[in-house]
Amino acid sequence: VNEHTITAFDADLRNLTRMISEQGGVAEKMVADSTEALSRRDPGLACRVLSMDATIDLLQREIEDAAIVVIAKRQPVASDLREVIGAIRVANDLERIGDLANNNAKRVIALGGVVPVARMTGLDAMSLLALSRLKSVLTAFVQRDVAAAIVVWRSDGEIDALHNSLFRELITYMMEDPRSIGASAHLLFCAKNLERIGDHATNIAETVHYVVTGNILTEERPKLDTTSVMPAEG
Amino acid sequence: VNEHTITAFDADLRNLTRMISEQGGVAEKMVADSTEALSRRDPGLACRVLSMDATIDLLQREIEDAAIVVIAKRQPVASDLREVIGAIRVANDLERIGDLANNNAKRVIALGGVVPVARMTGLDAMSLLALSRLKSVLTAFVQRDVAAAIVVWRSDGEIDALHNSLFRELITYMMEDPRSIGASAHLLFCAKNLERIGDHATNIAETVHYVVTGNILTEERPKLDTTSVMPAEG
Repeated sequence: VNEHTITAFDADLRNLTRMISEQGGVAEKMVADSTEALSRRDPGLACRVLSMDATIDLLQREIEDAAIVVIAKRQPVASDLREVIGAIRVANDLERIGDLANNNAKRVIALGGVVPVARMTGLDAMSLLALSRLKSVLTAFVQRDVAAAIVVWRSDGEIDALHNSLFRELITYMMEDPRSIGASAHLLFCAKNLERIGDHATNIAETVHYVVTGNILTEERPKLDTTSVMPAEG
Repeated sequence: VNEHTITAFDADLRNLTRMISEQGGVAEKMVADSTEALSRRDPGLACRVLSMDATIDLLQREIEDAAIVVIAKRQPVASDLREVIGAIRVANDLERIGDLANNNAKRVIALGGVVPVARMTGLDAMSLLALSRLKSVLTAFVQRDVAAAIVVWRSDGEIDALHNSLFRELITYMMEDPRSIGASAHLLFCAKNLERIGDHATNIAETVHYVVTGNILTEERPKLDTTSVMPAEG
């Protein structure tokens, strides 16, 4: 492998990382704006989130296409190959984060003005935490910072704990006030979507670890979301 | 490109298709068994579904790894490259189908014996439809049959229609009988998971079209799920 090839590959990698930063910026904006739209009951803002979905999907396809071209053209091996595979995986997680934010924005439009303010505290907290984990893990990815990625990976339990408590709270609220059931069901799905956004940040942390070290994070994943196994008796 | 290279590439492709058939078989079994576990209220069967999740995840990684090796080693272009990218995409959709079936199995365990039988009809119907679309689209993939893939793609609306009606039914039921809210909330998520399994079958149909023709299905995607935009006053 000559000097010229190394330089060209490095330029390819920088280009992939730049595209992922751009896509990550769109993902962060979609998460932040969909939650703000829910807090403020702002269907106009929710519509602007919906309009970003095509952009994040397009970026994912462009990153995947560019990565495939790099693999075919440069035939990278070992850590170089992991870098390119890492880009494909992160782009996929970011696209799914966009989908989840998009689904929450749709629910804002469905909810109109009927969100009970008291129920929003837990969702705001989940959203802030999801967003902060997303920002940290994207920085860890750009800087190939394994230690920072592990910090994000370990913090997955916090958002799950918020989700569990919000899930119980919403179920109780539905029981107390059956007229709230339609709205609360939407909020159950919003909370689940935020919890899944947190999972994708965890996936990205695992990808950073894999890209840099070549190893899979083997420690048991810190999965504390128990809402799908909560007894139905509430 | 000499004869030997073509043959080796064809063998690689056959190997990828074989792995996807295997993974598809696991996905079908997870979907069928998780629904049967829900119908029969059989937590033992649900546990067996959970145990299949590691298998489907491993198969996805193996397919992705094998596909990357093929791209690096053979440098395929045009339709050959699309074949390999298609394998990566289908493996990803099947892994996500496994996750969704796995989540439904967890909910069976959470529900114990409290599923109201009347509510199961809609879920059984959704599951049968999702399973039938999954089988058809996997056959279409193995046979590279675009016409069959388009039939699956066009049928996406049926499962969404079932989901919409079940969603409304469950919300009404929750309002009528607040004691059912915990169980019904789990069933809302089970229904949503089946609807998303249907979406992944649609994705696979789009991948078959892309692999064979090189074009993206441009017609507006037949998206009829309106539960996330249903007015909350419902």
